[in-house]
Amino acid sequence: MTETSHSDSPVTAQARRARAAALRLAALTDRLRRDALLAAADRLQQRSAEILAANAQDCASARLLVENGQMSRAMLKRLQIGPAGVGEMAAHVREVAALPDPLGRELSVTALDDDLILHRVSCPLGVVAVIFESRPEVIPQLAALAFRSGNALLLKGGSEAEQTNTCLAAVWREALAGFAEIPPDAISLLHTREDIARLLALDELVDLIIPRGSQGFVRHIMQHSRIPVLGHGEGICHVFIDRAADLQKALAVSFDAKVQYPAVCNAAETLLVHQEIAPVFLPPMLAQFAAAKVEVRGCPRTLALAGDQRLIPATEADWATEYSDLIISIRVVDSLPEAIDHINRWGSKHTDAIVTEDAAAAAEFLDRVDAAGVYHNVSTRFADGFRYGLGAEVGISTSKLHARGPVGLEGLTTYKYKLIGNGHTVASYVSGERTFKHRRM
Amino acid sequence: MTETSHSDSPVTAQARRARAAALRLAALTDRLRRDALLAAADRLQQRSAEILAANAQDCASARLLVENGQMSRAMLKRLQIGPAGVGEMAAHVREVAALPDPLGRELSVTALDDDLILHRVSCPLGVVAVIFESRPEVIPQLAALAFRSGNALLLKGGSEAEQTNTCLAAVWREALAGFAEIPPDAISLLHTREDIARLLALDELVDLIIPRGSQGFVRHIMQHSRIPVLGHGEGICHVFIDRAADLQKALAVSFDAKVQYPAVCNAAETLLVHQEIAPVFLPPMLAQFAAAKVEVRGCPRTLALAGDQRLIPATEADWATEYSDLIISIRVVDSLPEAIDHINRWGSKHTDAIVTEDAAAAAEFLDRVDAAGVYHNVSTRFADGFRYGLGAEVGISTSKLHARGPVGLEGLTTYKYKLIGNGHTVASYVSGERTFKHRRM
Repeated sequence: MTETSHSDSPVTAQARRARAAALRLAALTDRLRRDALLAAADRLQQRSAEILAANAQDCASARLLVENGQMSRAMLKRLQIGPAGVGEMAAHVREVAALPDPLGRELSVTALDDDLILHRVSCPLGVVAVIFESRPEVIPQLAALAFRSGNALLLKGGSEAEQTNTCLAAVWREALAGFAEIPPDAISLLHTREDIARLLALDELVDLIIPRGSQGFVRHIMQHSRIPVLGHGEGICHVFIDRAADLQKALAVSFDAKVQYPAVCNAAETLLVHQEIAPVFLPPMLAQFAAAKVEVRGCPRTLALAGDQRLIPATEADWATEYSDLIISIRVVDSLPEAIDHINRWGSKHTDAIVTEDAAAAAEFLDRVDAAGVYHNVSTRFADGFRYGLGAEVGISTSKLHARGPVGLEGLTTYKYKLIGNGHTVASYVSGERTFKHRRM
Repeated sequence: MTETSHSDSPVTAQARRARAAALRLAALTDRLRRDALLAAADRLQQRSAEILAANAQDCASARLLVENGQMSRAMLKRLQIGPAGVGEMAAHVREVAALPDPLGRELSVTALDDDLILHRVSCPLGVVAVIFESRPEVIPQLAALAFRSGNALLLKGGSEAEQTNTCLAAVWREALAGFAEIPPDAISLLHTREDIARLLALDELVDLIIPRGSQGFVRHIMQHSRIPVLGHGEGICHVFIDRAADLQKALAVSFDAKVQYPAVCNAAETLLVHQEIAPVFLPPMLAQFAAAKVEVRGCPRTLALAGDQRLIPATEADWATEYSDLIISIRVVDSLPEAIDHINRWGSKHTDAIVTEDAAAAAEFLDRVDAAGVYHNVSTRFADGFRYGLGAEVGISTSKLHARGPVGLEGLTTYKYKLIGNGHTVASYVSGERTFKHRRM
């Protein structure tokens, strides 16, 4: 039901307008959707000064909060758009415009009978809501992905970025307004925390929520809505060093997975080490971690191999903790199956890697570990839509349904079955007058 | 976390065992999964007498309930397995065994760099729970689909079929027990209503719930669990007779969609008729409906064209009602867009059909109607896994995420990304030492 009712709250009315816009967006041509994105990219660059001025206002207010200890420096840093930032935003939008059309793809064609053809065709989800903290560049990135895939977008950013977000959304809407076929409600902003609470109840009007922010924030959204949520509550990623590991690869992959950027979900939290390789692998690994100021929490066998280094003993809670920091837990295991069991028990089904030269061990690990990403001789840090070649990502999903792992345009589409006949009735198949042929085309 | 804890309820412990079994099922070969299904089909036929005896017991108890007015005759009929029934069950299991392996399919392969290859590979969901009313043949059908796709299955049938269900599940487990690699907990039964309530809370252990039963039952499950639910709350399907419709096709499709089997979700509930064709179409249509004892609820313009026939005036509530009976609402509309708007407002996104000889009108309808199935010159009754050539179906989904429309084996799978490298680190791409190639293979 998409009509506006007099009892609607403003957010409900806004979601209804987004739903009506979505029905129109679904019918736009590929060409128009591409042209509009290129226009939006141009407009972002034309309005660069205005966007940076709005951002400077937000940053000035944020700096006061930082000085009063009410905001972290990291958050201020994420809020800030650098001079090159607007150009990068525009470049990302152009990249999304250049991606192949995700809509109208024939996923399968089956002739049910001679002139009864079933087409499975990709189409948009409908209305997508994104709730994000800081990082204003999320707006053009997600607006581009949502628009390229024919979805209407509801956006709620953090209050600390209010000026920047409002300016970016206004510029975007201005660009779309140049195209008569595009409904203005293709993208709109929500403004208050209360708006979010109302939005979470609109499961009849909103098809998907994408929360971007801290673990606790994502979990809160997941727990308070019946709308499907695309995201991940936790990223507890593992690297397992098999007994047949190449020592140099083991050191390089483990170091990269923990140290290269520890704050993100695809960084490793636990290193599992086969007992047979632990005596040669752990001493140099621990030395590298010490040099990089990584705090190590070790199992008893790890502590025994630590030599002069004083490590913190790991408790069971460590296996279930996403540190998101320069901290790693290390456990020596007896066997490959023990490593797999540990990961399936404590992991978050995000991304887990094995380092080994033994192809059979790698195959067993990749088949048996239940995670969105299972890697052989690769750092877990590769779990990312850009690195996967998806062009961009709306997020990384640890759900098993719909979309798993890094999610790009395809995760913002569904499909419909189009069945084309010639007056066909089920009665004539039930009576035996006609029979199904089911020929894949 | 799959270990058994002392504080677990029996249902939680059972779900944990199913989860552990699922991790093993995921690694079985295609050959073994096929062989086990063929063995199960054979075993069903060998134990036919036993199964029919158990069913006779259930039917005897049910007959008493029917006599006391505590059960409907329709429910008794659904409970009863005919003499040919066990053979049909076995035949369906063999059909599922013959379907191509849904697991291990390479959905895409991308070379991220020269020796860094990303494979997207289909794999099982994990643990699937099916809650169903009556119809014991659901057990072998769903057990076959779940097992073919490498999933562990938790089953809860209606208490009226307890003897039959217990016997069928025991026969199935016996057949699987002939294979050392197959964990016995691949399939197990829940027994009480309290078990269901506990099951609905186990979102960490159960990946998907499939409820099979009445609308109210499905909605109850959807509202009381955070586990993803595959199914449909309602089936409000439409047939739209366009002004350019062929009259014979219009009559045949409308009659079939309503009358051929009105109790099911893909039967039509509302007929929309373009004003220009209404004067020629409605009189013969209404005569056909009257002859088939279909109650018609018409809009004012429909009533005006009814001649001698006395129809019931339709109210707004009729547009939102799934009659599941020989009742149909009819509305005359001014235009194709009005018909599309009606369907997008009042429909349930299940299956909607247009009858027309105008290709442009058909294309507009198929693109703009937001439903799992959009049909041109075909009865809505074709929305069914068998008819779509899926081999069988676990249900019909009106959700847009994951699986839409009739769902077969593919809806019981997800995918994982397998990334195979040679010690690759993200640091070397961030530093610019290496660059991504993203070559689709």
